[in-house]
Amino acid sequence: MRVLGVDPGLTRCGVGVVEGVPGRACTLIEYTVVRSDPDMDLPDRLLNLDVALTELVARHRPDSVAVERVFSQHNVRTVMGTAQASAVAILAGARAGLPVQTYTPSEVKAAVTGSGTADKAQVTAMVTRLLNLDAPPKPADAADALALAICHVWRGGIKSKLAAAAAAETKLAAASKLAFASKLAAAAAAAAAAGSRRGGQR
Amino acid sequence: MRVLGVDPGLTRCGVGVVEGVPGRACTLIEYTVVRSDPDMDLPDRLLNLDVALTELVARHRPDSVAVERVFSQHNVRTVMGTAQASAVAILAGARAGLPVQTYTPSEVKAAVTGSGTADKAQVTAMVTRLLNLDAPPKPADAADALALAICHVWRGGIKSKLAAAAAAETKLAAASKLAFASKLAAAAAAAAAAGSRRGGQR
Repeated sequence: MRVLGVDPGLTRCGVGVVEGVPGRACTLIEYTVVRSDPDMDLPDRLLNLDVALTELVARHRPDSVAVERVFSQHNVRTVMGTAQASAVAILAGARAGLPVQTYTPSEVKAAVTGSGTADKAQVTAMVTRLLNLDAPPKPADAADALALAICHVWRGGIKSKLAAAAAAETKLAAASKLAFASKLAAAAAAAAAAGSRRGGQR
Repeated sequence: MRVLGVDPGLTRCGVGVVEGVPGRACTLIEYTVVRSDPDMDLPDRLLNLDVALTELVARHRPDSVAVERVFSQHNVRTVMGTAQASAVAILAGARAGLPVQTYTPSEVKAAVTGSGTADKAQVTAMVTRLLNLDAPPKPADAADALALAICHVWRGGIKSKLAAAAAAETKLAAASKLAFASKLAAAAAAAAAAGSRRGGQR
């Protein structure tokens, strides 16, 4: 299974794509960091992230998306931006009709290092080893995103299948998700067309 | 100018559309509340809100979008959901290439009642009067969204033009926003197509 992991952030958003099966070494497909200038307006920053993540999802066609769950114990100002970036990441997966799973930082650390309190260096070292990389992925946001993706393949593979099965029985079944995605594409196209028709302010 | 105001929330998201010019009475176009069940998974809740807001923006073709700015002094758990809902609302406007402006609750209250510390009943009463409605808009989320839209027409009309002029000179000029929107529509269509091609897990 192919998983796209996202370590959400407005200034730096880590993205890592891996492929593998539970219990075996995973293969690195790509990692990257989507950046935006803190001086940019919030709408432009969110749009920039949305476009980048939508493109990554469309290009890599993962089976599911894993996003780090945002906690509130950090700096409150930063957390608001992180919460907004995580919404963009979750939407990018959901809009493509994919199952999206969130994990806490300690779940991810425990999955790749065996300890929920491991530090960043330890996580990066394990990610480097588990993906058979020659050098550690940089910056740390990318390593975290890869750890998330590995965590989902190993721990979440099952979770994700259960979630997918459950989703199929709920109101938002796969079919209606696809209908949503098509409706969205149509609405986006209509909005783009409306935008290009509109010359200036009314 | 036509403004779509959003009072963001995951369980109840107020939306109000008004038309008017600074200093004169505004006309009500529509108000509604987008709801989602707290028992639904977060990805489905965000997707539900995204689809509804994208449809409202495409249908009403506002000149700009006004969203209430999220503060952190409230209940922390609620704030995370509100921050994520606000990201969805801001994106819905930005993706359509529209200027998006945020206002604090006290800016909105001051604009429609003359006092930044007015209570909900006072805001609802003023919105009812300013839009010449026979009965107060219900629920309060809808009244707040209408107050935001009126605030933007009155106070923000100028702000919005300045913002639009500034945006035209920055990296994310209107043209590139439209390119973004088209790119997004194409990516969404590709993702929808990929989703319908994929039978099951790899």
